[in-house]
Amino acid sequence: MIDLNADLGEGFGRWTLTDDEALLSVITSANVACGFHAGDPSVMRRVCHLAAERGVRIGAQVSYRDLAGFGRRAMDVPADELAAELAYQIGALRVFAEAAGAEVAYVKPHGALYNRTVHDAEQAEAVVAGVRLAGGSLPVLGLPGSQLLAAAEDAGLTAVPEAFADRSYTAEGTLVSRREANAVVTDEDTVVRRALAFGVDGAIEAVDGTTVTVAARSLCVHGDTPGAARTAARVREALEKAGVGVGAFA
Amino acid sequence: MIDLNADLGEGFGRWTLTDDEALLSVITSANVACGFHAGDPSVMRRVCHLAAERGVRIGAQVSYRDLAGFGRRAMDVPADELAAELAYQIGALRVFAEAAGAEVAYVKPHGALYNRTVHDAEQAEAVVAGVRLAGGSLPVLGLPGSQLLAAAEDAGLTAVPEAFADRSYTAEGTLVSRREANAVVTDEDTVVRRALAFGVDGAIEAVDGTTVTVAARSLCVHGDTPGAARTAARVREALEKAGVGVGAFA
Amino acid sequence: MIDLNADLGEGFGRWTLTDDEALLSVITSANVACGFHAGDPSVMRRVCHLAAERGVRIGAQVSYRDLAGFGRRAMDVPADELAAELAYQIGALRVFAEAAGAEVAYVKPHGALYNRTVHDAEQAEAVVAGVRLAGGSLPVLGLPGSQLLAAAEDAGLTAVPEAFADRSYTAEGTLVSRREANAVVTDEDTVVRRALAFGVDGAIEAVDGTTVTVAARSLCVHGDTPGAARTAARVREALEKAGVGVGAFA
Amino acid sequence: MIDLNADLGEGFGRWTLTDDEALLSVITSANVACGFHAGDPSVMRRVCHLAAERGVRIGAQVSYRDLAGFGRRAMDVPADELAAELAYQIGALRVFAEAAGAEVAYVKPHGALYNRTVHDAEQAEAVVAGVRLAGGSLPVLGLPGSQLLAAAEDAGLTAVPEAFADRSYTAEGTLVSRREANAVVTDEDTVVRRALAFGVDGAIEAVDGTTVTVAARSLCVHGDTPGAARTAARVREALEKAGVGVGAFA
Repeated sequence: MIDLNADLGEGFGRWTLTDDEALLSVITSANVACGFHAGDPSVMRRVCHLAAERGVRIGAQVSYRDLAGFGRRAMDVPADELAAELAYQIGALRVFAEAAGAEVAYVKPHGALYNRTVHDAEQAEAVVAGVRLAGGSLPVLGLPGSQLLAAAEDAGLTAVPEAFADRSYTAEGTLVSRREANAVVTDEDTVVRRALAFGVDGAIEAVDGTTVTVAARSLCVHGDTPGAARTAARVREALEKAGVGVGAFA
Repeated sequence: MIDLNADLGEGFGRWTLTDDEALLSVITSANVACGFHAGDPSVMRRVCHLAAERGVRIGAQVSYRDLAGFGRRAMDVPADELAAELAYQIGALRVFAEAAGAEVAYVKPHGALYNRTVHDAEQAEAVVAGVRLAGGSLPVLGLPGSQLLAAAEDAGLTAVPEAFADRSYTAEGTLVSRREANAVVTDEDTVVRRALAFGVDGAIEAVDGTTVTVAARSLCVHGDTPGAARTAARVREALEKAGVGVGAFA
Repeated sequence: MIDLNADLGEGFGRWTLTDDEALLSVITSANVACGFHAGDPSVMRRVCHLAAERGVRIGAQVSYRDLAGFGRRAMDVPADELAAELAYQIGALRVFAEAAGAEVAYVKPHGALYNRTVHDAEQAEAVVAGVRLAGGSLPVLGLPGSQLLAAAEDAGLTAVPEAFADRSYTAEGTLVSRREANAVVTDEDTVVRRALAFGVDGAIEAVDGTTVTVAARSLCVHGDTPGAARTAARVREALEKAGVGVGAFA
Repeated sequence: MIDLNADLGEGFGRWTLTDDEALLSVITSANVACGFHAGDPSVMRRVCHLAAERGVRIGAQVSYRDLAGFGRRAMDVPADELAAELAYQIGALRVFAEAAGAEVAYVKPHGALYNRTVHDAEQAEAVVAGVRLAGGSLPVLGLPGSQLLAAAEDAGLTAVPEAFADRSYTAEGTLVSRREANAVVTDEDTVVRRALAFGVDGAIEAVDGTTVTVAARSLCVHGDTPGAARTAARVREALEKAGVGVGAFA
């Protein structure tokens, strides 16, 4: 059983980015932007409504406060301040999820905050503090082996490791840095094939040709490039054809 | 029984404005800024914590999105967009109220949105739509006779009219426009005396010397000027000495 | 001799909107967004560079401070504050125009500010005050008969009236309100035909079938919809084929 | 001859921080906030007017885009983007300086950008690129020995090293980190005495009691705390009484 997650609602005001409607026909978990890197209240409301209608789970895609940089610029935010900023976002999204008859079911940091909390224990703990401040015990989605998932587990939250079909892996099972030319897999067929390998065998081919095991419960697909929604649809179709169940993580 | 409300948490980041701690010893309802005209997440968290500690009720002081203008510039926001923006703010504040063991108990529009919804039925209805979108059935605080309170009642919400001890009233019981030189009462003794008249007799002296009845359940005191907290404290003391109960509205 | 102007650089951070490169091959005057409704510094820099390279004149497309509403929500900004906000934008754009070896050659208000200053004399004068505060004597682009152009002329600035090939006109020569269903002309052939009528005869067909004279020195083409740049190219081609010179206003 | 510089115009909208009028009677160089960490256009306009009136030189106090964090949170901004963001701020300020009959005469990074460019060569070069993009050859104010001043000199700009009377120095002549308890000197008499030692001997007492030479052409005084303007006035008076000339750097 594999969960498929994608970033949604990443427009802002006049601007649109993600093909929300198409992706919602494919994925099982929607990481909804909460207004700090993207996602104005009207977009959040609409995406929550659509997600609830289709039974797609809603997660809070929390971010640094950085519209101009789309949350892709790491920031040295003091831990207390960061926790409060994330709780604020979760609370704001909760209103729209609940108005749609659903709930905020998990949290996934966006962009630079996601990358930073792979290694930065202090910010990882701040993210977890923000989740706890927001109430309940929301699961946290992140990279296997990250400080973020470790902090989530330490705090008694469910840590949900995820894999990427369109990112290259080292032989050690970590992601190839985006600074490397081969960091991203762009060929659609290859992406589908890798998703299938992960779904069936829990393994992905590394850049050196070896096969590495990836212990993940969710597969992230992207939706901010042309054709992304179609690739995601092919990934789902291939998984289902191979007998792999696609559904939200428990 | 009179409720005393004041605007709190109107700092942002490095900037402070309201004397939150002093006011929380005096008032019974705290209108907490929610980030759109003032109030960053850390301030919201702190004010909610202090308010809960002292048993002061927490309300969402919602605003147009306008940090640069402190929410004092009326904006032609489409109704749907405005409702979503206000629900967003209420949801964000709710996280901090609930983390402090309290709840968001009412809504009061701030600044230009407050003034605009006195006469603008469309925006008044949008505010009420935002309150409903945010869930529950929160009471709405506003000016007696305003479109806002009418819309709240039409929607089945509790409409809470408020009076101002430091604003001048016309003989018809409406506020003297801020464009008039005598709109604001600045003398501390006079403010206390007017608050007392309102508390004991439900009446306030108008600018023409006549006495007008003000049907209000809450009295707004201000906290963004030097000495404001002290005036508020004197108001409360005078009311209690006169045997008027001070407590949150039902 | 007709000037063709279009809004450019209306992306922000991760988001793009206008097809800047395609439009710069067609127009003679580029209204560059200055960061208040769209247009981050990197976009402004790039658009100024491209415009200078192609000899397209650069204008400051100034706006209310409203990224979330794309400058389309009218705001009651006090005159002094508005003038300062506009001068700020002009100065910021000037840096990039001058770095590209060009200059800011005119000013055109965007969105709600454009519409508001058709009728609102106080804000119209504030726009002109902002232009003067920014130094020099920049021409102002606007609607014929608007308060804005009147205020510009009163202040000794060059007032440049513009026409729209894709907007419907009343028999009195004013624009049909966007609230009307027929406000915008969407058929490409019709837009081209109307542009041609304006270019050759200085006249446009009104909604009642009569022909109205439009005294304008510039024609606005739009660039924020798919196909917009192609329509603009066809407009220019048709004008030139008909012997109408296309060039920046004097 | 010593220059006295201070941060000014660090309010935003409804909020005020620095005592601009009092400081302008004392200092010779005003680091004016440009809207990214503080300083709305109206404040910028007013401070430039006052500074020009009193013959105080105007500098651009440029910052990361971070109102919520007051520019005190270091950000990983790509170099090109950072340069454009800083040029934008310089251009915006120039409008108000020139409208006041003055000019932007130098650049000083604020807060986290100041601290980051002490050691981060890439961002230091981006600051210098921003200064050059803004045209002219503005001097850059910074910490002696910083990457920022090195980059400025490499680019042919005038590098102006500054000292702090209210910060502790190590025996090596570097600033004691703000994380240390004794980083800031708060006693007013001590600050005045240290300023005098720097002015007369170019030396400051280090935390270990030794005396270190500080090669600086400007002395930074602070203005964002109560009493700060008075301390600054005493510093200037003491310097002048000791025969040390106080004037803007050449």
